[in-house]
Amino acid sequence: MTRPSLEPTLDHSVRLEQDAVAILDRREFPHRVRWVIAHRAVEVADAIREMVTQSSGPTYAACAALALAARQNAPAAPATVRAALESAGEKLIGARPTNNSVRDAVTAVLDCVAALPSDTDTAQISAVVQQAAAAQSDGYRQRSRALAEHAVNLLSDGSRVLTHCWMDTYLIELVRAADRAGKRFAYVATETRPYLQGARLTAHTLAEMGQDVTLITDGMAAAVLSPHSTLGRIDALVTAADRVSMDGHVFNKVGTLGAAVAANAFGVPYYALVQAPDPQAATTADVVVEERDGAEVLSTQGVRTASRLVARGHYPAFDVTPPRFTTLIVTDRGPFEPAAVAGYFDQDKEAR
Amino acid sequence: MTRPSLEPTLDHSVRLEQDAVAILDRREFPHRVRWVIAHRAVEVADAIREMVTQSSGPTYAACAALALAARQNAPAAPATVRAALESAGEKLIGARPTNNSVRDAVTAVLDCVAALPSDTDTAQISAVVQQAAAAQSDGYRQRSRALAEHAVNLLSDGSRVLTHCWMDTYLIELVRAADRAGKRFAYVATETRPYLQGARLTAHTLAEMGQDVTLITDGMAAAVLSPHSTLGRIDALVTAADRVSMDGHVFNKVGTLGAAVAANAFGVPYYALVQAPDPQAATTADVVVEERDGAEVLSTQGVRTASRLVARGHYPAFDVTPPRFTTLIVTDRGPFEPAAVAGYFDQDKEAR
Repeated sequence: MTRPSLEPTLDHSVRLEQDAVAILDRREFPHRVRWVIAHRAVEVADAIREMVTQSSGPTYAACAALALAARQNAPAAPATVRAALESAGEKLIGARPTNNSVRDAVTAVLDCVAALPSDTDTAQISAVVQQAAAAQSDGYRQRSRALAEHAVNLLSDGSRVLTHCWMDTYLIELVRAADRAGKRFAYVATETRPYLQGARLTAHTLAEMGQDVTLITDGMAAAVLSPHSTLGRIDALVTAADRVSMDGHVFNKVGTLGAAVAANAFGVPYYALVQAPDPQAATTADVVVEERDGAEVLSTQGVRTASRLVARGHYPAFDVTPPRFTTLIVTDRGPFEPAAVAGYFDQDKEAR
Repeated sequence: MTRPSLEPTLDHSVRLEQDAVAILDRREFPHRVRWVIAHRAVEVADAIREMVTQSSGPTYAACAALALAARQNAPAAPATVRAALESAGEKLIGARPTNNSVRDAVTAVLDCVAALPSDTDTAQISAVVQQAAAAQSDGYRQRSRALAEHAVNLLSDGSRVLTHCWMDTYLIELVRAADRAGKRFAYVATETRPYLQGARLTAHTLAEMGQDVTLITDGMAAAVLSPHSTLGRIDALVTAADRVSMDGHVFNKVGTLGAAVAANAFGVPYYALVQAPDPQAATTADVVVEERDGAEVLSTQGVRTASRLVARGHYPAFDVTPPRFTTLIVTDRGPFEPAAVAGYFDQDKEAR
């Protein structure tokens, strides 16, 4: 193993190049290091839909895609550039429905364009998009760092943390924030079938960062949370949230609900990390839970694992954890009890 | 697909041959149909330990191993045969610690030998062992059929049943009992990592038997039990139990606990099927929960699935479901509430 580093490989898995967006293919990493080269914004949207990147990755990729679209349309008339950006934004937002970070970043960039005077020339539009897209990426990282610091405040040095799926920037910033605070945690990661994000991405990144990590299968989450576990007490379940509704429901990679319910049953706190609840999602009815092709459940890394006689798999990509099973929702503005998470926006109202 | 049959392949996966016990290798089935040939009882014990067969399989294999041991020692003196049988029994019982069916079957056979007069000759001992071993296998099947009938009584026609891991004879008899009762259930099966018993054995057998089956990953159990599931209401969680202690704790394949806790949280009944609670296990302290090699978690069907940087997996093979999460324990004498499962033996006391 190489020397531990707080700069893991997956912290830089989207690159804006001259004529393309290069996206590290997380469906194969780390077994194979391959970059998908998207030459147009719509190809970035396709890559997001096809799971080339997920978690924080799509937000970085969408920002890069908008910058690329602006650059590629630079020779065109301003109205054409604006239309191309709107179209790209729509495709990027529509790639996957459950997480709202791509929507928020794309909307923020397009709002900057919309705010420009109608006589703004193409070069100026392009420059604004480059800058706004970079600001969205940077802002995403800064908010991730802020929420990670709040999460670290909730955890004592030496805590054993169970996590599920791949928290991406949240996880990387959690380890860095703990390091700055002089704390060290031991991690237990679920493998996260069918894509194995836990076994491949989370466990690999934690190992690269020199952290203590133990891998379990998804079905073992409740067992390690229970008093009969031989692994030692789990001090907290910590996951990201792809979306949090204003009434405190947590949408995250399927498997989160089972771990949260078990944590609740055995008195282990569950902290869901999200930059902010989604003001556009008052309740669960406002969030689309993506269903992916059930065939993805029948294989593992491209090899058939189910009996050939099995015709049908079912793959809800996310599950919904009701507020009663979540201890705190940890945002960039600090932790909130799930039922009070709408209070995140109180300071905005006061500021008005 | 071949024509559905109530005689699935896995109902006959242990064969006593002239000089060996042939055991269908369930680590590869149905992708590859290969029989492990055990020429001595100790090789049967090894096969059980190495997961060539599990669930009901080890009981049939252990009975066959004792019959083989008696036959192979037929030329020896009676004392030698008795010693060989004792030794074989010890190895078979010791192969895996959590399930008590092998212990019960082996003890019953050896008790028949011990009850024979001291001047019984080798041929007579061998004949008694053959008969007692066959009776144990038959009894196991009959008790499985009885508990399956009790389970079917708890389920309405058209019920959607979630199951975990591989119930073997219990599952096959459940489908047959439902068929006799004119009922049909739809099944949702977890894949059951790391060995994929659900994806390979359960789903295959249900398909062979013409049943409606949908495969999910282990992490989806809570999601399909929750009110947000798009699969439709799950009417019951039904699993086997490898052991039930007299105070109503259910020991079963890891993953059962998480499903049971989620079922409880969302108001879905959980029925644990076991022939009888174990009178030798008053509490959880009397049961050894097997821990298998953590490396088994890092691969899937022999192919590395975890990052190469991950040094440690954790594999508790079973978990422990406390009585508060189980609705009924369904035995061959009918269903019992977990706290009252010791009542199973009341009729034995009355009979004395």
